[in-house]
Amino acid sequence: MKRSERIVCLVSYFLNSPYERVQLSYFTDQYKASKSSLSEDLDIVNDMFVKEGIGKLTRITGAMGGVTYEPVFSQKSNEDFIKSLCQKLADPARILPGGYLYMSDLLGDPQTVKKIGRAFVSVFSKVKIDAVVTVETKGIPLAYAVANYLNVPVVIIRRDPKVTEGSSVSINYVSGSSRRIQTMVLSKRNLAENLKVCIIDDFMKAGGTITGMVDLLSEFNAEVVAIGVLAEAEDKYNERVLKNYTSLINVKDVDAKSKKITVNQGSIYKTI
Amino acid sequence: MKRSERIVCLVSYFLNSPYERVQLSYFTDQYKASKSSLSEDLDIVNDMFVKEGIGKLTRITGAMGGVTYEPVFSQKSNEDFIKSLCQKLADPARILPGGYLYMSDLLGDPQTVKKIGRAFVSVFSKVKIDAVVTVETKGIPLAYAVANYLNVPVVIIRRDPKVTEGSSVSINYVSGSSRRIQTMVLSKRNLAENLKVCIIDDFMKAGGTITGMVDLLSEFNAEVVAIGVLAEAEDKYNERVLKNYTSLINVKDVDAKSKKITVNQGSIYKTI
Repeated sequence: MKRSERIVCLVSYFLNSPYERVQLSYFTDQYKASKSSLSEDLDIVNDMFVKEGIGKLTRITGAMGGVTYEPVFSQKSNEDFIKSLCQKLADPARILPGGYLYMSDLLGDPQTVKKIGRAFVSVFSKVKIDAVVTVETKGIPLAYAVANYLNVPVVIIRRDPKVTEGSSVSINYVSGSSRRIQTMVLSKRNLAENLKVCIIDDFMKAGGTITGMVDLLSEFNAEVVAIGVLAEAEDKYNERVLKNYTSLINVKDVDAKSKKITVNQGSIYKTI
Repeated sequence: MKRSERIVCLVSYFLNSPYERVQLSYFTDQYKASKSSLSEDLDIVNDMFVKEGIGKLTRITGAMGGVTYEPVFSQKSNEDFIKSLCQKLADPARILPGGYLYMSDLLGDPQTVKKIGRAFVSVFSKVKIDAVVTVETKGIPLAYAVANYLNVPVVIIRRDPKVTEGSSVSINYVSGSSRRIQTMVLSKRNLAENLKVCIIDDFMKAGGTITGMVDLLSEFNAEVVAIGVLAEAEDKYNERVLKNYTSLINVKDVDAKSKKITVNQGSIYKTI
């Protein structure tokens, strides 16, 4: 195999297996290359990943050593993406009856979802995360996008128990905005005990749902080490119960009368 | 930029943008490379993609021309994956009360979900698909995995209308297994008229839900050009209403008494 051929394989391998430590010997065996030429290959790949702002390779020497691709994307590319998202959300055609903002088209676009995942993992890269947790339905694609880059499983909290999930733990919580009592259910088989988890959701007002998720997760002795929401909006009637989170977008105001929407970048890059 | 450096960028570009036609001039400008060296780069990338069984580059010359990455994965890798999935599913610990099979851990693993997507796109590559449609909840990650490789939007049919979705079309249908009348809802803004769509779901027994989806989609003048289900199971009491679909796995029998599960490869590679 020539260098350029090895590099095709290496790049494809790393992009598909983020945060997975691979022994150098795996590649030298696979490509029948010497350790020194492989080392040079990895330098080239790392340099270009850094230059393109799509992450870096981390090498650890020794018996437990190996090389790991860390997908941390540049702040500029994340902020450019958030800016374009804000522009799209500011379109008055998105205003729904009741002053809600239509966002499902953006959540349905795989490229947008991927970039939302990139923004979150870029700021979560310093904490160890064992699993990504979300609540059905709209947070699910975002949770998978994050989990794809972190290479950890996704756990979905449901609204009702399902026969196909086995025994489960459920809690009741008060939704911050509607002040109604709601239920959340998590199958016991879905999440092992004592894990470090990250919560991902699409939208947050007072934060009641996410607080409920934190409570439910404590039943599994899980430690919530990061919380990411795509969009946050102010709740005029209730104080926010949750303080520590990362949002990409802040929906300041939706004025159904004058058809004006004010959207800004959220707390990302402010909280860290 | 050297060849090896350009190749890092090219591979990363293609893997992130399947089925997207790019003008050669985009790359020659970006990398300040001559047309002939870029052409050689593309040959190397294509050869290795084919060798690794992860797809190919298609080049069209002329004014509307360009290069497209088609992610079609080798039959062998897909069948090996399905075999490993069958082995995992045959674990008696998966049997739930009522003879159901616990599968959520597999659906929660991003690498597994990605490979399920790969298997589907590999057999769907011959039809043009404008959007992937699924019904909440468990089909969602699979739909996004397929949509990621097809680079088309995902549309999620819901069980209840939501205020954040705007006006919607709903239908009632009879679930094949439970013989109960159920409702499905699709927001009008979610799907344009006259599209060619592919339906993805996690599980199918008699096929009532998918038939309901087809009916709902016909309200949008959508043409269902492909149907993919992860697992199909026989329904002893109802004849299957749906005939034309691709399944990865066939759950032949779950014997809760003797704790024996029989799972085989589904209809994939048989229907085409």
